[in-house]
Amino acid sequence: MAIKWKRKDLVGLKDLSKEEIELILETAKSFKEISERPVKKVPTLQGKTIVNLFFEPSTRTRSSFELAEKRLSADIMSFSGTSTSSIVKGETIKDMARNIEALKIDMIVVRHGASGMPHRLTQFVNAGVVNAGDGINEHPTQALLDMFTLKEKKGRIEGLKVTFIGDISHSRVARSNIWGLTKLGAHVTVCGPATMLPVEIAKMGVRVTNDLKEAISEADAITLLRIQLERQDEPLFPSLREYANTFQINKDTLKYAKPDVLIMHPGPINRNVELADDIADSDNSVILRQVTNGLATRMAVLYLISGGTER
Amino acid sequence: MAIKWKRKDLVGLKDLSKEEIELILETAKSFKEISERPVKKVPTLQGKTIVNLFFEPSTRTRSSFELAEKRLSADIMSFSGTSTSSIVKGETIKDMARNIEALKIDMIVVRHGASGMPHRLTQFVNAGVVNAGDGINEHPTQALLDMFTLKEKKGRIEGLKVTFIGDISHSRVARSNIWGLTKLGAHVTVCGPATMLPVEIAKMGVRVTNDLKEAISEADAITLLRIQLERQDEPLFPSLREYANTFQINKDTLKYAKPDVLIMHPGPINRNVELADDIADSDNSVILRQVTNGLATRMAVLYLISGGTER
Amino acid sequence: MAIKWKRKDLVGLKDLSKEEIELILETAKSFKEISERPVKKVPTLQGKTIVNLFFEPSTRTRSSFELAEKRLSADIMSFSGTSTSSIVKGETIKDMARNIEALKIDMIVVRHGASGMPHRLTQFVNAGVVNAGDGINEHPTQALLDMFTLKEKKGRIEGLKVTFIGDISHSRVARSNIWGLTKLGAHVTVCGPATMLPVEIAKMGVRVTNDLKEAISEADAITLLRIQLERQDEPLFPSLREYANTFQINKDTLKYAKPDVLIMHPGPINRNVELADDIADSDNSVILRQVTNGLATRMAVLYLISGGTER
Repeated sequence: MAIKWKRKDLVGLKDLSKEEIELILETAKSFKEISERPVKKVPTLQGKTIVNLFFEPSTRTRSSFELAEKRLSADIMSFSGTSTSSIVKGETIKDMARNIEALKIDMIVVRHGASGMPHRLTQFVNAGVVNAGDGINEHPTQALLDMFTLKEKKGRIEGLKVTFIGDISHSRVARSNIWGLTKLGAHVTVCGPATMLPVEIAKMGVRVTNDLKEAISEADAITLLRIQLERQDEPLFPSLREYANTFQINKDTLKYAKPDVLIMHPGPINRNVELADDIADSDNSVILRQVTNGLATRMAVLYLISGGTER
Repeated sequence: MAIKWKRKDLVGLKDLSKEEIELILETAKSFKEISERPVKKVPTLQGKTIVNLFFEPSTRTRSSFELAEKRLSADIMSFSGTSTSSIVKGETIKDMARNIEALKIDMIVVRHGASGMPHRLTQFVNAGVVNAGDGINEHPTQALLDMFTLKEKKGRIEGLKVTFIGDISHSRVARSNIWGLTKLGAHVTVCGPATMLPVEIAKMGVRVTNDLKEAISEADAITLLRIQLERQDEPLFPSLREYANTFQINKDTLKYAKPDVLIMHPGPINRNVELADDIADSDNSVILRQVTNGLATRMAVLYLISGGTER
Repeated sequence: MAIKWKRKDLVGLKDLSKEEIELILETAKSFKEISERPVKKVPTLQGKTIVNLFFEPSTRTRSSFELAEKRLSADIMSFSGTSTSSIVKGETIKDMARNIEALKIDMIVVRHGASGMPHRLTQFVNAGVVNAGDGINEHPTQALLDMFTLKEKKGRIEGLKVTFIGDISHSRVARSNIWGLTKLGAHVTVCGPATMLPVEIAKMGVRVTNDLKEAISEADAITLLRIQLERQDEPLFPSLREYANTFQINKDTLKYAKPDVLIMHPGPINRNVELADDIADSDNSVILRQVTNGLATRMAVLYLISGGTER
């Protein structure tokens, strides 16, 4: 690896170079082995303090980050749900940031419903900032673990054909993956109902289609996005049943894909909505491997960020 | 101690042999001393990760487990109340279990309102599973700490006469104690209103009575069960006052018992319902000793389970 | 330093001698440097267990204590909000205290809405008790960090003129500061609407005024108290606007003070109510320094208390 990591924040994959992304993936490889040991712990971040600020509820991503932090021996403080709102009661993000800074925190992992909030936070603190999902903007560690899994299973990313199916408009997972995958030379296709495909998306260098068969027939990997009814302000499709009829990956629709296609999902799965039960648990599925790789990827990101100095 | 511990789960005392129970009690003895030291910590489970899943609210049992885990130097993650329900929102127990497994967790401590849930969990994960209370089935670590306390105070368990008073039908504490105590040669009596005495209980090798005097006159130890009004679907007795009139242990009713009888309670006490204030705080009471011994017993269980391989 | 620390509790500054307060401030100085290191952690309290009991909601004070505990390598358990109320459901403070004691806890940090509760707790436990705020009585660690900051910036406390502005009647911050500052030879002035100035306060050896100009004209430091509308049972002033018109520190009112006056606030600030934005962020403001010093002061208190034996 020729380059050295310099950044002290990870706000999104849009900002990273191909070489920086490759360095994270390479670093994650060496961290993956730690969680296989009997003693799953290294002293890498001993005496560092990390604050986890989850303004949006999250069990999986937060657990994954916290576990990564503990296995790196960091001291951690987590705020989520109601306790996070009390943090900001009567004070601005700027005040909150400065107060955290005054406690001599080394890194902040932040999830927020507003796109761009992690970037704003970097302007107020010297602590490193890691974006754990912001609005409909980016979810960089999810995309990195997806790419890590792709590379682990397919041996490369360059030239791979990767398809995302679902609500592309509202998906920070899709957006981060598109930034990362295209930088590394993969070909991305997005597929979903017309109402869920933003107009700008074609400008990101991806193929856009609402024909499921076309979307998956040459794919090396398919990521199903979680259909989140609760996030919709207005109904984007008549019913879950209709969505499933047209876009669900199941035994019948998977026939159009290559036999060794990887089935991916950021979780939690709506079983039998976007993905049929038997396919979720089939040999094509690498969904649980993604969970395992999430740990290694986040350990790598925290390790690199902790040594970074540049914004 | 002739035998070696092999199990990787502790689901209930029904499954354990006399020798396995004795091994846990013996191991707990050596762990008890740790919490008396100025430095209350050993590196036994360093680098192991334990997840505490409390689907039923619990402060005492959860605190006891968490403290045991910390004093063994494990890394821990705890989910309870609302955060636990969000874990399983939209996913099955099986999905949850597999996701935890993918995070390379070593042990899971689980409390759940459904009897048999910890056993089901063992079918989905390689991690060790410790039952912290399941429905009306078992609460094995509570029974183990009760037996540890009995042995500590009386020098033996074989031949002791132990009486349980209260809602036997709904008591996982009583059930686990009956399994354990009878295996170790104690004589168990259960006592309560007829509506609270299940028909099957006599088949477990215990004496059943609703005469308080008869139940306690020869007892070496009396365990009062917490009367849990909130758990009853239908009223099992006309009123708390009537229950207390007939079954409360107080200065008057304790006259029927031996002078050195031990008064035990799994906590929290409904003071002056099942147990009068002055008796709870008397020299006969070993209730706070039970709390202290709970720590040592759970440290022993976690230590043994962490080295087990067989299901 | 001639004296040795002997106390095992810190209930309030009313109880402490001048020498004890000076010892805490001196000890805090040596702890401040730890949070500036790359490895922000010392093994001072390794193997000690601290329970944080926050019956009143708190993010800042609790975070500060928890971080201090982690940087001293203690094992910690925290209960707050709803989980704290479940602790005491159906049991008395006395029962709760004894149960905590049975778990072999070394120290308890407690915040409670009832004045005097930490003192009561000391009567039931051998563990050290640190008051993190009780009703309208005391908040000793806040006053200690305020004094630490004063001494750090002004080189001394004796002879300083310190003014508190706001709801003095309901302020445990003001009360603890008055006890501490007067013992160390500072001159304290309190200022606020007549309805917020308790009659007894003059007996504490402070100057009382409701003339802002008079209150601040000779002050070396001004502490603005948070106006807490939610705590008032009845309205003490017609409106926030009227309060701000008369007592707000802003560019105009600060003209009456000395150029090098320190602006202090226990946080969180109601920006543009008790304190104008530009002054909060000016060079006079040491508000973020107070947050940093809170960590060092609490580390010092926990360290000293952990070695104390006398009540």
